[in-house]
Amino acid sequence: MDFTSLNISTLANYLRTVPSVTALLGDMDALDIVEVGDGNLNYVYFVSSQANPRASLVVKQALPYMRLVGEGWPLTRHRSDREAHALRQFGALCPQHVPQVLHFDSAQSLIIMQRLSHHQNLRKGLIQGLRYPFLAQHLSGYLARTLFHGSDLYLGADAKKQAVAQTINGELCKITEDLVFTCPFEDHASNVYSPALPRTEIERLHNNPALRVAAAQMKWAFMNQTETLLHGDLHTGSVMVNQTDTYVIDPEFACYGPLGFDPGLLLANLFTAYLSQDWHRLQAGEDPAPYQDWLLAQAGDLWRGFSESFLRLWQEHEDQAGAGFMGCARDASSQTLFRQQFVRRIFSDALGFAGCELIRRTLGLAKVAEVASIPDPQARAAIELRTLSLGEALLLQRHHIINIDQALDLARQTRRSLP
Amino acid sequence: MDFTSLNISTLANYLRTVPSVTALLGDMDALDIVEVGDGNLNYVYFVSSQANPRASLVVKQALPYMRLVGEGWPLTRHRSDREAHALRQFGALCPQHVPQVLHFDSAQSLIIMQRLSHHQNLRKGLIQGLRYPFLAQHLSGYLARTLFHGSDLYLGADAKKQAVAQTINGELCKITEDLVFTCPFEDHASNVYSPALPRTEIERLHNNPALRVAAAQMKWAFMNQTETLLHGDLHTGSVMVNQTDTYVIDPEFACYGPLGFDPGLLLANLFTAYLSQDWHRLQAGEDPAPYQDWLLAQAGDLWRGFSESFLRLWQEHEDQAGAGFMGCARDASSQTLFRQQFVRRIFSDALGFAGCELIRRTLGLAKVAEVASIPDPQARAAIELRTLSLGEALLLQRHHIINIDQALDLARQTRRSLP
Repeated sequence: MDFTSLNISTLANYLRTVPSVTALLGDMDALDIVEVGDGNLNYVYFVSSQANPRASLVVKQALPYMRLVGEGWPLTRHRSDREAHALRQFGALCPQHVPQVLHFDSAQSLIIMQRLSHHQNLRKGLIQGLRYPFLAQHLSGYLARTLFHGSDLYLGADAKKQAVAQTINGELCKITEDLVFTCPFEDHASNVYSPALPRTEIERLHNNPALRVAAAQMKWAFMNQTETLLHGDLHTGSVMVNQTDTYVIDPEFACYGPLGFDPGLLLANLFTAYLSQDWHRLQAGEDPAPYQDWLLAQAGDLWRGFSESFLRLWQEHEDQAGAGFMGCARDASSQTLFRQQFVRRIFSDALGFAGCELIRRTLGLAKVAEVASIPDPQARAAIELRTLSLGEALLLQRHHIINIDQALDLARQTRRSLP
Repeated sequence: MDFTSLNISTLANYLRTVPSVTALLGDMDALDIVEVGDGNLNYVYFVSSQANPRASLVVKQALPYMRLVGEGWPLTRHRSDREAHALRQFGALCPQHVPQVLHFDSAQSLIIMQRLSHHQNLRKGLIQGLRYPFLAQHLSGYLARTLFHGSDLYLGADAKKQAVAQTINGELCKITEDLVFTCPFEDHASNVYSPALPRTEIERLHNNPALRVAAAQMKWAFMNQTETLLHGDLHTGSVMVNQTDTYVIDPEFACYGPLGFDPGLLLANLFTAYLSQDWHRLQAGEDPAPYQDWLLAQAGDLWRGFSESFLRLWQEHEDQAGAGFMGCARDASSQTLFRQQFVRRIFSDALGFAGCELIRRTLGLAKVAEVASIPDPQARAAIELRTLSLGEALLLQRHHIINIDQALDLARQTRRSLP
């Protein structure tokens, strides 16, 4: 069948042809279908049977353009293949943290997957001041397992090279290359500056050669360090949570890239959640401090959990194989030193990527709800001055911050030091 | 036609079917064919017409195993596709430095190319103490042009990603991963130690965690920094020279890798030529100093020429495009700083790769003629102690050596400091 852009009325007929769907939903005579996509790229539908409303699923279709802009921004549907592949790969590694793919139709660029009915978007939950007891544990485990198993440390060298070739995602990488690493660091037409953010501060950043160089170095790393299969867009809006579960969704940006990229984006988004609580918790009539402490504790546990799990997976894999990246000789002190420096280098990269993310979400095209939703321009700008300042510090000091506690201290100082 | 392993008698019939060959050789009734391959991997023939002996060409065929070992070391013939592709790509960029491909038959893994009749292998020339007035100029230009044009700095980001995918060369990369970066740094069965080289020194290197970590970091960089299409085996035996020309041959190891890899290998081989002259020039009854000075001057000119040409190509390309890697804003101070740090990073990488090459050519499986040909075991070991010492210093100090003159000083000190 040629590609057809489906809609609420045509989707039902399509779904009746898919055995895994009819098996799940049961009575297919009357379906409830609602379009719920709030992302920039694709269309997303919730589908359930009226006769059996508890049975429900998600349908995601990529059209040959960007949803946010329309046909004026053409985009191939290749991203749907990349997303389905990543959902299956990450799902095989972490079935408890990735929605199950029930059906993928490459010709229709259509993924049918498990609906997370009892889960909330993490970004929205953090704006509301909610806590999730397993958040850092789950996300750090997801990061360690997905990033380790895509790398040369687990795959054979040739299988890894083939994986790099088979997961090229040039169109969506280019969005990242432009909108994360390039445009926000110059006075580009695509940037969006909030009304009360002082132009002098924007100009100061754009005229800081050391900052522009650091951003360009992170861009080079993103484009050239083909270390592992990344989620590629792991902000808090790509996470669905409740009190017991954590799911990572929407990996259409998946590509080979640096080990520090996904952890860095998550850290940056936790820092943004942290800094924005000086508005959100006060609006809710609360003292922000306890929730802010909880948020930074999540960032700390996330990094420590990730690095410990990654090192444990590495050690176990090499112990089992009887050989390792450094060779066959089981020289414990060399291995320990190599692994320590390896994780230290991932950490520097992660801080650099976090710095880019903080700055691009403030000056670039795509904003985050916890800041963009602040209606008072002055209050919003006050938060934005902090996200910029923290982003700048992380980028410039990424090689000198020696552990996650120093990074958390930097976040605390940034919050306190500005008016 | 199915693949056929050709030999001197069957090759003539094959060649009569190739129009570009008959056009070049003229009379095909009686051909002189001689097998001349002295490499480890493939068979190489010189072919000329008896009626017209000045017209001559080279035929190179890859068999499904490693020539050196025979059918006991199977190897796919894919390397021939990689070599033909690289010869054509590098040849298009530097026609004056790459033999012209007259014919490529992928099914027969057979490349017919320009014969360099009036040229000598550079390694052999350096053993003889010969000088080539254009050596550094030609090689630095070749390096700058080939390495620049394979990178994101020249190709569009998507074209570069496709190029990475299309040039995967897993089998030959694995040879490099094992024999350059892994086995020489542990007491591996494939290593070959020269008889008089003190075992205590070998053990000292194998038990130095900092050195093993540095080698593993270079291995990770080789496997994960997909920065540009490399020659992949650019030692002095891969260069053909005379007083006016310089050709780079045998790129079957071509793959995407770090910008510093090819320059690093060349530097290491020039350093080996330099250190070995304390035997070769004395054997010829000469004072080694003048020729050693010339060799180090070549290494200095090679690096300076490469980095200056690379920066000039980059500048010209971005000036012409009106945009650059850092974006559209033409901020000279940021660009200058980024480019300086970029080349500084290539330099560190090149020193690290040079260090690995020096050590692997001394302790690993594959030796270099200028050392392995020294018949006196003590004299050979004295040179080898120096190549090991210089390799160790380059690996350990690669981030602290700030320019090529410091690296040359280190080579001089290494020569002087040992007995």
